[in-house]
Amino acid sequence: MKAAIMGYGVVGSGVGEILINNADIIEQKLGDKIEIKHVLDLRDFPGDALEDKLTKNFEDIVCDEEVTLVCEAMGGTKPAYDFTKRLLEAGKHVVTSNKELVATYGYELLQTAKAHNVNYLFEASVGGGVPILRPLWQCLAANHIERFYGILNGTTNFILTKMYNEDMPFDEALRLAQELGYAEKDPTADIAGADVCRKTCILASISFGTHIDPEQVQTQGIQDINIRDVSYAKANGYEIKLLGYCSKLAGGKIDAIVSPFFVPKGNQIATVSDVFNGIVVVGDMVDEVFFYGRGAGSLPTASACVADMIDCAMHTEKRKNFGWGARDAAFVENHKCCKSAYFVRGEGDINAVKAAMGDVSFLSLQGAPLNEVAFITPCACESELDEKLAAIADFRIASTIRVLV
Amino acid sequence: MKAAIMGYGVVGSGVGEILINNADIIEQKLGDKIEIKHVLDLRDFPGDALEDKLTKNFEDIVCDEEVTLVCEAMGGTKPAYDFTKRLLEAGKHVVTSNKELVATYGYELLQTAKAHNVNYLFEASVGGGVPILRPLWQCLAANHIERFYGILNGTTNFILTKMYNEDMPFDEALRLAQELGYAEKDPTADIAGADVCRKTCILASISFGTHIDPEQVQTQGIQDINIRDVSYAKANGYEIKLLGYCSKLAGGKIDAIVSPFFVPKGNQIATVSDVFNGIVVVGDMVDEVFFYGRGAGSLPTASACVADMIDCAMHTEKRKNFGWGARDAAFVENHKCCKSAYFVRGEGDINAVKAAMGDVSFLSLQGAPLNEVAFITPCACESELDEKLAAIADFRIASTIRVLV
Repeated sequence: MKAAIMGYGVVGSGVGEILINNADIIEQKLGDKIEIKHVLDLRDFPGDALEDKLTKNFEDIVCDEEVTLVCEAMGGTKPAYDFTKRLLEAGKHVVTSNKELVATYGYELLQTAKAHNVNYLFEASVGGGVPILRPLWQCLAANHIERFYGILNGTTNFILTKMYNEDMPFDEALRLAQELGYAEKDPTADIAGADVCRKTCILASISFGTHIDPEQVQTQGIQDINIRDVSYAKANGYEIKLLGYCSKLAGGKIDAIVSPFFVPKGNQIATVSDVFNGIVVVGDMVDEVFFYGRGAGSLPTASACVADMIDCAMHTEKRKNFGWGARDAAFVENHKCCKSAYFVRGEGDINAVKAAMGDVSFLSLQGAPLNEVAFITPCACESELDEKLAAIADFRIASTIRVLV
Repeated sequence: MKAAIMGYGVVGSGVGEILINNADIIEQKLGDKIEIKHVLDLRDFPGDALEDKLTKNFEDIVCDEEVTLVCEAMGGTKPAYDFTKRLLEAGKHVVTSNKELVATYGYELLQTAKAHNVNYLFEASVGGGVPILRPLWQCLAANHIERFYGILNGTTNFILTKMYNEDMPFDEALRLAQELGYAEKDPTADIAGADVCRKTCILASISFGTHIDPEQVQTQGIQDINIRDVSYAKANGYEIKLLGYCSKLAGGKIDAIVSPFFVPKGNQIATVSDVFNGIVVVGDMVDEVFFYGRGAGSLPTASACVADMIDCAMHTEKRKNFGWGARDAAFVENHKCCKSAYFVRGEGDINAVKAAMGDVSFLSLQGAPLNEVAFITPCACESELDEKLAAIADFRIASTIRVLV
């Protein structure tokens, strides 16, 4: 079977490497070879093993009837969206690691794939090498998904781990992540949560059967996490993690948010450190399951892309039944109306806090300033919390962070 | 689509419950209903929701042409083997939670399924509700599996957790497990490791493409673990876990063993406590991935069975390409020739140990008898270790336990 790779960067070159180096195991599984006929990239790669397959012209791929399978590893939506759509319309299977494209145009592209009886698969778009989308779709198929939450970005988890384990300030941890190649020169998409938001949308779309758009998900990154919040977490049995979080609400809508969370130790998610990813899924029949592994990197991510290519190659005649419904603007509840417990830190008088907030758990920290007050609230709506906090006499809020319960 | 359930015990009744209660989500995924036409059991279930489907006669199922899908949840090999074979030969898809049957006759039954162009799936046979077989086969398809190790039996993990966290002696922990319904009246299959052995065989067969028979896997249970070994583990940064362990050796053979292990804290497997299951798989491209969840119980296990039923129903026309090769007696290396580090505890003189063993790490334990010596060896063959240990002057061995490295 003849295939093409579009985008020969970190992931695309990994796909090439696996298809060449692990050709034996692939042929054993598939009963056929996957042969790379074209590699699309605007750059040159002199001396590369696939140098003679390189093309700068997309038409070489889309017009080649021999090519029935394409791995898109270009990233971004332009021109990836147009290219993917044309490939699917031309009756070619497409697999991708491109979370931005799937989170934004997943519904539409899956519809196109269905119309042309081909597969559009993207296991690598969430959790890198961690098997998550296929288990969620297939292995938990008999469950109503009640909620999921995950550490979906290795860069921010590396930074938080450094802040937590070594009391390293945010700026220094970010610089270190950049030096080690974990963070981009412009780290905004990671740090501000956009990357986690896209992955959360894909997980939510599969879990709840409705396309969730990044614009529907309230997203907050880690740039405002203070080292003092980290100290409170450490002193009181919590980790701090940036989570993509989604839960089914009683009325049928969902709570979907990207935000830092206080995570109690003992939760599996609390064990995920450094650049690793981890995702907890709760189904009504299976209860809690947890998936863990390398969420980024050339070969782990490419491992997931190639698995999708093998799956496509096994389903050339009959398309896999995979997809979700159209976007519903009302499906994601306003985050102000969603319930959570919160960690709150601020300056003021503890008695004023007691009077206004009622039943909260105060947290202690050795060496904290005398006028610093930190506590964890009971579960309540964000708007209700806002009102209560505003009613505390002379209280200056420094941080409010969701607590995973 | 019409289905049957064989065996209406813990798992079979869970399958019935899910097919009825979660019919909405199943129909949404499948675009069709799965309707239970027959339930095979020798017992009566007056008042049960499926009472009118009950039959004591297998022929009612195998001869019913309308039934195309059967869930076998009888357990054991007799009559499950004959029944399964006849169903597959009759062109019916079969799914099962029966690890004994799959570990013993998996190759043969998969061949029968292939010959008759139907599916034989058994996600529930390992890890209960934890998605593991499908991720291993499909999501890691581009990898050579290098090794896996897992906590595959909730009963023994519950007992070990009690021994570890509460210094409870083995007998008392077993009694508690029986009271709570986690252990059978005759707990031998769990305690002595036979259950873990079967699951290890299934994982190994999928991972390495060759049928691994329970007889090929050296199996040791937890009945000989002494509370003093547990104390040494606790005092020196280890957990004690019963693992199914398998690794690819340099010459192409595998090391496959079921045994208690000292597991260093920090390894994901060390976080699996109580009745939960967890499995680490290492692939050459993806590195380490970890799966965790409920490894037993009616609904979690049934959740996996029903997922397989849905998968079968989606692949009625084209059989899933799933299976492995015939047994190869030489494929599993003699465990005496496999390398591992070991924890050793015994009575003797520490200087005699130093003289005979060379480079070992001695472990300390507050309040240990003066003549007790405990240490961890470097990685070496079991036979080499045996020789060295035998050469220590006046040393009485109390325990040797593998260390996960």
